[in-house]
Amino acid sequence: MKTIVEQLNQEQLSEVRRQMEIYTQGVQEIIPSEELEVKVAKSIMKNRPLKIKLGLDPSAPDVHLGHTVVLNKLRLFQDNGHVIQLLIGDFTGKIGDPTGKSVARKQLTDDEVKHNAKTYFEQFGKVMDMEKVELHFNSKWLSKLNFEDVINLAGKITVARLMERDDFEERIALGKPISLHEFFYPLMQGYDSVELECDIELGGTDQHFNILMGRHFQEKFGREKQVAMLMPLLEGLDGVEKMSKSKKNYIGIDEQPQDIYGKAMSIPDELMVKYFELITDFSPDDLAKIKTDLESGELHPRDAKMLLGKTIVRIYHGEEAADKAEKGFISVFQQGAMPDEIPTIVWDGKKEVAVVDLLVELDMLNSKSEARRMIQNKGVKVNGEKVEDTHTVISITNDLVIQVGKRKFVKIHI
Amino acid sequence: MKTIVEQLNQEQLSEVRRQMEIYTQGVQEIIPSEELEVKVAKSIMKNRPLKIKLGLDPSAPDVHLGHTVVLNKLRLFQDNGHVIQLLIGDFTGKIGDPTGKSVARKQLTDDEVKHNAKTYFEQFGKVMDMEKVELHFNSKWLSKLNFEDVINLAGKITVARLMERDDFEERIALGKPISLHEFFYPLMQGYDSVELECDIELGGTDQHFNILMGRHFQEKFGREKQVAMLMPLLEGLDGVEKMSKSKKNYIGIDEQPQDIYGKAMSIPDELMVKYFELITDFSPDDLAKIKTDLESGELHPRDAKMLLGKTIVRIYHGEEAADKAEKGFISVFQQGAMPDEIPTIVWDGKKEVAVVDLLVELDMLNSKSEARRMIQNKGVKVNGEKVEDTHTVISITNDLVIQVGKRKFVKIHI
Repeated sequence: MKTIVEQLNQEQLSEVRRQMEIYTQGVQEIIPSEELEVKVAKSIMKNRPLKIKLGLDPSAPDVHLGHTVVLNKLRLFQDNGHVIQLLIGDFTGKIGDPTGKSVARKQLTDDEVKHNAKTYFEQFGKVMDMEKVELHFNSKWLSKLNFEDVINLAGKITVARLMERDDFEERIALGKPISLHEFFYPLMQGYDSVELECDIELGGTDQHFNILMGRHFQEKFGREKQVAMLMPLLEGLDGVEKMSKSKKNYIGIDEQPQDIYGKAMSIPDELMVKYFELITDFSPDDLAKIKTDLESGELHPRDAKMLLGKTIVRIYHGEEAADKAEKGFISVFQQGAMPDEIPTIVWDGKKEVAVVDLLVELDMLNSKSEARRMIQNKGVKVNGEKVEDTHTVISITNDLVIQVGKRKFVKIHI
Repeated sequence: MKTIVEQLNQEQLSEVRRQMEIYTQGVQEIIPSEELEVKVAKSIMKNRPLKIKLGLDPSAPDVHLGHTVVLNKLRLFQDNGHVIQLLIGDFTGKIGDPTGKSVARKQLTDDEVKHNAKTYFEQFGKVMDMEKVELHFNSKWLSKLNFEDVINLAGKITVARLMERDDFEERIALGKPISLHEFFYPLMQGYDSVELECDIELGGTDQHFNILMGRHFQEKFGREKQVAMLMPLLEGLDGVEKMSKSKKNYIGIDEQPQDIYGKAMSIPDELMVKYFELITDFSPDDLAKIKTDLESGELHPRDAKMLLGKTIVRIYHGEEAADKAEKGFISVFQQGAMPDEIPTIVWDGKKEVAVVDLLVELDMLNSKSEARRMIQNKGVKVNGEKVEDTHTVISITNDLVIQVGKRKFVKIHI
């Protein structure tokens, strides 16, 4: 008996190859990759789109470049006629944390869930065609399960299997308690795949365990198993931790062009190629050239980074904004006003001074009212800390750095 | 501030002492016993009965003396005006085993559950006043829980705590899988106590973990915690294993007087006192006397056992039946037909012989048709093994023991 792939004609076969090359580019792991090929082949033979799932946290989204690693891949599937299933895990969000211990896991209302879904939709619209995307909320089926259903679901998985999840294993080793309800989150994610009948689930490598739950439960429910496609995690601007909102090491796709460009310039050199690969729309050939030129020295890292910054701005704000951001950067920074060359001003005034007075006396702003406005707009920082209140009084110390807006710095010498 | 017990007057105090003596007699463990005293004291002070829970398996009941250890204790509570809550775990029974692995855990229908509950009721009626007993089915509340409720319940217990249960711990040590749904059975039992608002839960020592779940969940739900009263497990007729239907080492309370009496006579000597303590209605003084007389040799173990047999028959069949059973026993066994004095018959016939022929030739039965009937009624054993088929052919060996009915034995010599 012939395999699906063997049944294809030459044209179909080369279409499978073409799509596989696109899909596998830059992916960290495909489990199992032979099944992906079979699914693509079937889809071509039967002219039936694949269903590609992405699970989303229902809490307030602020989409950053870390997310786009997965979104860009989804977009490639969409470009080839497949269907994206965005799954908002609102059921969990509406429950909150039953132990009451996690402050982060606060309970969301229906309105909050809807609002957050809308935000995802708006922001994802910069990467893919949202009119072709399916939007699902897992409360639709999970809220309907009764205790008997839950027990039947729980009967399809062993405790030992669940304890293999890295974070559970670690907590067990450290003697840290795991509440029984936590075992249900991977179950839910797995069951969502049963309901959605998805062919592929995408996620970061940190979703390895949870995405395999989808395969597990689809099999237990007698369905075709999904393929897990795990994308590399993008390190943030610190070059160490995964890019995330909470670590404040991210570039949001909704940020202003100038800010995106500026932040891109602070990416560590050694991550540059990874950023080009994962978050730009460069072709494999273009990527190869950048890599070679960087290695040979033909492309200066700073120039490569400027290209990266400009590219990111172009993707999310268009050509014009990209040109403007580049020009702005060149005029401010390349003309000698880099933050590592901050002007120092000797201070011989009071040791305790109202921040609005300080800003005027340092000539950073023209008037107290301008200073107040700037503080209200969150544009004033002292030693990197945002000044929240216009009545703040500053204790002057040596080397205190005052910043106004993105680019104006003064260091105090006493 | 005075404790509850300190607030009682002399009369109330001596009533607390009286009840406590009755309740604690023969109990293996009370967790914690000071709380039991407080509960009894409160009940006397406020003239409010305590609620005493007993959980029951919904599968086909066949109540034996092992059960009566707990039932007798419940009866004492009832005699003192407290309320017995019988809880039939029908929710679990209706689900069956979701993994499909356990044949024993077959799914029960509503009718089967009702029928089994009725059987419990009839049989328990021999020990307590069933008109005063509350009957509950946990499907009433458990079937109403939705996934969110289940997650909230699961959030109130840790995985580590559940893994402490002896059988789970053992299976983990042996690498045997535990399905996640199994973690829910102790949760349900615990949650039942929340719903029933019970003050005390009774059970065998093997229910230690499950009954403490009741305390745990009552506390988590902000209720007053139940006291766990754990009764010793009664070893069966083999003197080793816990009395149980599956081990066939039991005396059913519904059995015929003669059978109960006969089985009682086979109880190992060293268990006799325990049987007197746990399954008769003897007063503490009477029990003490039996113990002393046995130790001094004033009471012969055989006579003690006869008293035990007669007592059990009296409890479940009345005085008359007890007298008759005793007389019957004396006539059959004490007149020289004890099984350890089995008549030996020298066999010089064929080495392979049809069992029906053998029974007639040995003069154990009068005709082949009688022999066939006896085999069909499961009344024939060869070397202790029941003969299932009337066509069985026996291979004759030295010392082969043939048994017909309860009391007729022949040993073959070749």
